[in-house]
Amino acid sequence: MGADNPQERLDKKWIVGFVDGEGCFHVAINQQHKMTIGWQVLPELRVVQHKRDRQVLERMRKTLNVGVVRVNNKDRLELRVRKLSELNYIVTFFEKHPLMTTKHQNFILFKKIILAMNEKKHLTRDGLTEIAKIAAKMNRKVRSRYLESSETIRQTRST
Amino acid sequence: MGADNPQERLDKKWIVGFVDGEGCFHVAINQQHKMTIGWQVLPELRVVQHKRDRQVLERMRKTLNVGVVRVNNKDRLELRVRKLSELNYIVTFFEKHPLMTTKHQNFILFKKIILAMNEKKHLTRDGLTEIAKIAAKMNRKVRSRYLESSETIRQTRST
Repeated sequence: MGADNPQERLDKKWIVGFVDGEGCFHVAINQQHKMTIGWQVLPELRVVQHKRDRQVLERMRKTLNVGVVRVNNKDRLELRVRKLSELNYIVTFFEKHPLMTTKHQNFILFKKIILAMNEKKHLTRDGLTEIAKIAAKMNRKVRSRYLESSETIRQTRST
Repeated sequence: MGADNPQERLDKKWIVGFVDGEGCFHVAINQQHKMTIGWQVLPELRVVQHKRDRQVLERMRKTLNVGVVRVNNKDRLELRVRKLSELNYIVTFFEKHPLMTTKHQNFILFKKIILAMNEKKHLTRDGLTEIAKIAAKMNRKVRSRYLESSETIRQTRST
């Protein structure tokens, strides 16, 4: 295996090391009026690289058989995985080949959300609140617009 | 192997993936009046992480048996390898386990400099110029103070 064989699959442990360095597990909860519940849960795994390293993102995509390679920002590309079926594979993959950095703790929270979504919890108000609370612990504890929305606060108070 | 066994050695392919993401091969050429030739060649491999991931740097150090973990900047730590004997091991390691990103091309230049230093070329004016020309191609082609120094320009013109 070498940097000069762009067709070759990547070693799985290499992928774990690279995601430990460059990957990001993220869950957005966005207002979405088209949906019955009014909010959409959007989990994703993203690996960003300068466009000069497109081949390595393509090889990751090919090796894991998930995601799309697309423009991230200016000279940057990303491998992005968003489909729930593919994220289930990602969960299985990183359970089998654990992350070595503290990103592992983030992954554990991410996995809880994916499992909850498999059970369609994101489509109920209680399930969504549960997911939002987990998501709020991830990624430097970004405040959850969903949890802060007056509607949710009202609902939480009344239960 | 898991993130919860801080004593365990890291998988070698994981290390390659992590260095592909977070590592930096760098060669500085600094003015150093104490040295006969007046310039010092300072090659290093550096892997920077937030201090929350100290354990992963310590495990890399232990697995490769090279370098020191030290403060990089504020909340950041680095695993830094500077000793020539240890950099020779690093060269052997990444020859056996190649980097997958374009960082590989940087490594090839880095290796040339390490091999030149093994032959003590950095202690002669011609050797130093050769090394400086290789170093100038690395790391986004930072301009070489050595190559630009008037003394060197004079010497190059006269040969």
